[in-house]
Amino acid sequence: MENFTFYSPTKFVFGKGTESEAGSLVKAFGGSKVLIHYGGGSVVRSGLLDRVKKSLDEAGVSYTELGGVKPNPRSGLVYEGIEICRQNDIDFILAVGGGSAIDSSKAIAAGTLYDGDFWDFYCGKPIERALPVGTVLTIAAAGSEGSGDSVITKEEGMYKRGAGSEAIRPRFSILNPELTTTLPPYQTACGITDIMAHLYERYLTNSKDVEVTDRLIEALLITMKNEGPKVIADPLDYQARANIMWAGTMAHTNSCGVGRSQDWNSHNIEHELSALYDCAHGAGLAVTMPVVFKYVMDHDKKRFEQAAQRVWGVETAEEGIEAFRSFLTSIGMPSTLGELGGSREDIPTLVKNLCYGDGRDGTISGFVTLNEDDCTRIYQMML
Amino acid sequence: MENFTFYSPTKFVFGKGTESEAGSLVKAFGGSKVLIHYGGGSVVRSGLLDRVKKSLDEAGVSYTELGGVKPNPRSGLVYEGIEICRQNDIDFILAVGGGSAIDSSKAIAAGTLYDGDFWDFYCGKPIERALPVGTVLTIAAAGSEGSGDSVITKEEGMYKRGAGSEAIRPRFSILNPELTTTLPPYQTACGITDIMAHLYERYLTNSKDVEVTDRLIEALLITMKNEGPKVIADPLDYQARANIMWAGTMAHTNSCGVGRSQDWNSHNIEHELSALYDCAHGAGLAVTMPVVFKYVMDHDKKRFEQAAQRVWGVETAEEGIEAFRSFLTSIGMPSTLGELGGSREDIPTLVKNLCYGDGRDGTISGFVTLNEDDCTRIYQMML
Repeated sequence: MENFTFYSPTKFVFGKGTESEAGSLVKAFGGSKVLIHYGGGSVVRSGLLDRVKKSLDEAGVSYTELGGVKPNPRSGLVYEGIEICRQNDIDFILAVGGGSAIDSSKAIAAGTLYDGDFWDFYCGKPIERALPVGTVLTIAAAGSEGSGDSVITKEEGMYKRGAGSEAIRPRFSILNPELTTTLPPYQTACGITDIMAHLYERYLTNSKDVEVTDRLIEALLITMKNEGPKVIADPLDYQARANIMWAGTMAHTNSCGVGRSQDWNSHNIEHELSALYDCAHGAGLAVTMPVVFKYVMDHDKKRFEQAAQRVWGVETAEEGIEAFRSFLTSIGMPSTLGELGGSREDIPTLVKNLCYGDGRDGTISGFVTLNEDDCTRIYQMML
Repeated sequence: MENFTFYSPTKFVFGKGTESEAGSLVKAFGGSKVLIHYGGGSVVRSGLLDRVKKSLDEAGVSYTELGGVKPNPRSGLVYEGIEICRQNDIDFILAVGGGSAIDSSKAIAAGTLYDGDFWDFYCGKPIERALPVGTVLTIAAAGSEGSGDSVITKEEGMYKRGAGSEAIRPRFSILNPELTTTLPPYQTACGITDIMAHLYERYLTNSKDVEVTDRLIEALLITMKNEGPKVIADPLDYQARANIMWAGTMAHTNSCGVGRSQDWNSHNIEHELSALYDCAHGAGLAVTMPVVFKYVMDHDKKRFEQAAQRVWGVETAEEGIEAFRSFLTSIGMPSTLGELGGSREDIPTLVKNLCYGDGRDGTISGFVTLNEDDCTRIYQMML
């Protein structure tokens, strides 16, 4: 185990009906003029937005609204949100939605208190201060409800970049599994895949003697393996939704990933897919992970064998990766570039964006360092 | 899963040499005049106290000292600490030691800002404010470094009572596994037992559909089963010490125990033992748990079978409990009341203190509600 700092000061309020606590939580964390930031129609249609507003009204907190967040949230709406916050003296941002609404809220929170272009933060400038952010989560997936991370897509060029800071970590997150029961199976499966990706990215490590975090990650992977198919079969299964929701948060607060090197190559390779094709991040990960795992397997076959045996109940590294791929297919996830809308002709663009974007030097590094040739072969294996 | 709130805002700084950050952490959390509170000679002899003081000096933080905390920390020293804090305008308490030093520090922190007798808090009065507390942990055991709980023994009558509040949760905890390598095997084993008790107390639940927390608890139990014997065999095994230390903290922040009813009968039954015999809490738990588990096993045999199969690699509930008992013996823990210094004659006193102390009505409740007869038989089974 390596030295680390772990700090996760988000207050998680979990369970049925907990969105009614939004107002009192905003107030407890110092908010009086709120921007409610959300995505599309489902938050409105389901009545959730009204319930959140009622809760804010009851707490005597005023609010302004900004809807329209899309999956793979865009810089354009962030600029709009920053303007609204400044014009209305907003002092708290409440994200209502999934990872996209939360990530967009975090960007607005940082940008509002910054004189320059908020995009600077997504090019490496540290975020030193931000408006406080709270969340009402509607999909178990990104883990953004418990992290200090945010990923935004720049509309000029359609490329994704991330920023991270303690300043944008949510003060509180309301996790009501009931809110996820209306999600279509495809989005549910994308969320399951994203959570499992957050676990595998931590599992693939070059650190030695990491029994405690290995076991914690495996525990969460087993939970996803067992509970995932239940919610695909019965979207109204509250208990399975609840188990998945807490696993999703625990997967990404990093308590299971401390003291060890992590991978994140699959995320980097996928980000180019969802940026170019605007596909769901989880769907892109489902195509990416089994291919990457096969490609890097020989770097530490024992680690893949360990996952095979402890998580998937099979023997070899190959069988474990195949069991994971079958699992993803069984919950309705794609397994080829074609299913995401891509083709062989795109591969040079994908590789160029991946290996030279974001100031990279022609390689990406994590569990294994991959160069242009490696990345080309990986994208080819997705065909 | 049941509704819950999870809030663990302690900053954990983990790894080799991290005690050198004590000064900057105290300062970052607002401290300028510190009470350093610790136990016996080992903190002094090992040079740890000097290193902590050096770190405070370098940060420009002044300090006063109060040593002498004993295992099963006493009310007398708490009163003394409160006086010192008031006379010296102390604004931060830094515990250097194990659960006893930390629990005593929490009591002093709450008592200093309270006009009445601090013992009121241990008789049920809510703690609303307290001086901030930080910790430098020297034994993986109690989990007090990441909890809002404190247990103190009242010297008049020698009985133990607990208090809990967000106000006494440590602002930061420094976890350096190196500091635990000088612990004698017996104390190390007591710590291992205490950590496993915190896990079993959460595992024994009447809540249904708790896959995610079941799996997380099992992950930590497996870690203890695998890493525990390593540090008994080789006290200098840093990596095993590190795995145990993070497991101990994770066992008690409650991220693995949320959304489910918990037991804590073994702790209650044991508290009478360590209060009466002044034995180590872990040693008392080693005697208590296997007996209690056998006694309550039929209440939910499937749950004990699940632990047997997933944690201990055996089949039946009985075999799982026996495997746990053998494990405790193998690391040097006692298994009878006699080994703790007790005898049959004490049982009426133990039962009376247990079932009628602390305002109880003749029963204790948790996984199973136990009356005087049950508790008598349980203590008899320890003979």
